[in-house]
Amino acid sequence: MRATTIHAPGDIRFEEVPDPRIEEPTDAIVKVVAGCICGSDLWPYRGHNDIDPGSTIGHECVGVVEEVGSDVRDIRTGDFVIVPFDHCDNTCAHCRAGAHSACDELGFTESGQAEYSRVTQADGSLVATDGMPDDALIPSLLTLSDVMATGWHAAVAAGVRPGGTAVVVGDGAVGLCGVLAAAQLGAERVIAMSRHEPRQELARRFGATDIVAERGKEGAERVAELTGGVGADAVLECVGTDQAMKTAFAVARPGSTVGFVGVPHGVELPVRRMFQRNVGLAGGMAPVRRYLPELLDLVTSGTIEPGLVFDLTLPMEQSPEGYRAMDERRAIKVLLQP
Amino acid sequence: MRATTIHAPGDIRFEEVPDPRIEEPTDAIVKVVAGCICGSDLWPYRGHNDIDPGSTIGHECVGVVEEVGSDVRDIRTGDFVIVPFDHCDNTCAHCRAGAHSACDELGFTESGQAEYSRVTQADGSLVATDGMPDDALIPSLLTLSDVMATGWHAAVAAGVRPGGTAVVVGDGAVGLCGVLAAAQLGAERVIAMSRHEPRQELARRFGATDIVAERGKEGAERVAELTGGVGADAVLECVGTDQAMKTAFAVARPGSTVGFVGVPHGVELPVRRMFQRNVGLAGGMAPVRRYLPELLDLVTSGTIEPGLVFDLTLPMEQSPEGYRAMDERRAIKVLLQP
Repeated sequence: MRATTIHAPGDIRFEEVPDPRIEEPTDAIVKVVAGCICGSDLWPYRGHNDIDPGSTIGHECVGVVEEVGSDVRDIRTGDFVIVPFDHCDNTCAHCRAGAHSACDELGFTESGQAEYSRVTQADGSLVATDGMPDDALIPSLLTLSDVMATGWHAAVAAGVRPGGTAVVVGDGAVGLCGVLAAAQLGAERVIAMSRHEPRQELARRFGATDIVAERGKEGAERVAELTGGVGADAVLECVGTDQAMKTAFAVARPGSTVGFVGVPHGVELPVRRMFQRNVGLAGGMAPVRRYLPELLDLVTSGTIEPGLVFDLTLPMEQSPEGYRAMDERRAIKVLLQP
Repeated sequence: MRATTIHAPGDIRFEEVPDPRIEEPTDAIVKVVAGCICGSDLWPYRGHNDIDPGSTIGHECVGVVEEVGSDVRDIRTGDFVIVPFDHCDNTCAHCRAGAHSACDELGFTESGQAEYSRVTQADGSLVATDGMPDDALIPSLLTLSDVMATGWHAAVAAGVRPGGTAVVVGDGAVGLCGVLAAAQLGAERVIAMSRHEPRQELARRFGATDIVAERGKEGAERVAELTGGVGADAVLECVGTDQAMKTAFAVARPGSTVGFVGVPHGVELPVRRMFQRNVGLAGGMAPVRRYLPELLDLVTSGTIEPGLVFDLTLPMEQSPEGYRAMDERRAIKVLLQP
């Protein structure tokens, strides 16, 4: 098949690789209908993560089940499925407690920007739609494989509740989905920290009531002003850098929680400040499967349209250009079609 | 008056100092009936914190109100009161949200091991008992000024819920109160990590169902065995060292929360592990006033007897010996009587 691969920082290719195949009786092979590029794909692209040269890259996709292993019971060939980036059996003690991203049988999508992708624990991982979805729904369904579920997890972990004020640090696609999640979970005021006008606009469309363009200390002061000096009831940290984490703790009111979903890179947590102000930290890698039924309902009913985060659609063979566009922040998020 | 003072690491004295006096109209002066030594007093005693030579030390006491400022309305001369170590107005936005330890008018008890102590924000801070309590109740009432409220905060922050498994890291007085709190909040299984037999015994009396004497990696393995490889539903970190924090994260199941109340010293939080396993951190300096009404009920009704943490009672002038006894772990916690 043809797949997106990474050979070195900045060196993304779309090339022929061996087809994925059923390796375990619990596997399924999905023919990708749409894949996309994740902010976390930029970590190796920018040289911040180790690279296995020539390996496939991409972990977000939706598609049609092409083949299933002999132990797969609930998912069938021909099903249109959401593929969570983190695969799970949905039955172990961790999954039963909602911690699907720590499943005993945890696996990951390894070729989401390709023609086919292997899914482990297919019955546990995959959620099928009712029949074939309209083309118009595909972008929003695709976000459920990671970015929307991750933004949702940030809001849940931060303890967003009806009536409160939520601050979202980060205006990437995850941050924007975090805005949508916070608004959907009932936050009365959603403050998006964003400097980029097109992203500010989308944040407003997703439910942001206020935009703070300032960063760092100035940004925190602006949030303090907006919250009468009290700080936010819930903070979503959707970047993963030390700067973003510092900002998150600076705007959190005493007794609140920072929900974090950005893969931490060089983050040093301010434990003394956390102690003195009783600001907690929760979150981590999103348990996508946990939220899928609820989010699928919200998307299919038209209640939310997270697919709006895609502002560039390319044929899959142009995935290298997709990476460049995201790296240069010319695009918020890039959708790839085989 | 006579008060306990600290002059240098290891140099505790009981000596004449100026009487505390009403400085603000919201102040009260309390004649101390009983004070005690806190594990956190050992930080400066052991040279880990800066010392202002000759300053009074001690922040836990109960007593009788001797004098009130002109703006004090609810608390009256002659009331027997619990003095939270952290004073608060109980009316600001942070107090209303239960984050009393970040009160806009935050103050601290500065001479709890002395004959008199000044309390700021007396109406907000103090809780009076119904008349004079029996002598037998004094030790338990005294624990409400800090240690029991702090153990309770650890359990609340860790999210202890009926039916689950709680692990308590630390067998100091706070840890033991954490055991009592976890049991009281309904944990079905309370695992106390303790190597010292008298402390193990008290932990059992407070509701521990299991004792793990091993520490570090072995301790974590033992907890894993006890929890069927899953880990604890809630973890109380009641020490404040990096080792204790590492143990806490090692025994926490994915999706759970470590409730921390030990003043952090040299702690580096394992942010990557927290992310990968979705283990959160919450807690900090205890909002004592928040829990006082509830805890006072539990003590006066005889439901809990946290005063059992005191295994040494000394006349207050022997406070230097009290410090030695706690430093050498000859005593769990020392009660001082003027």
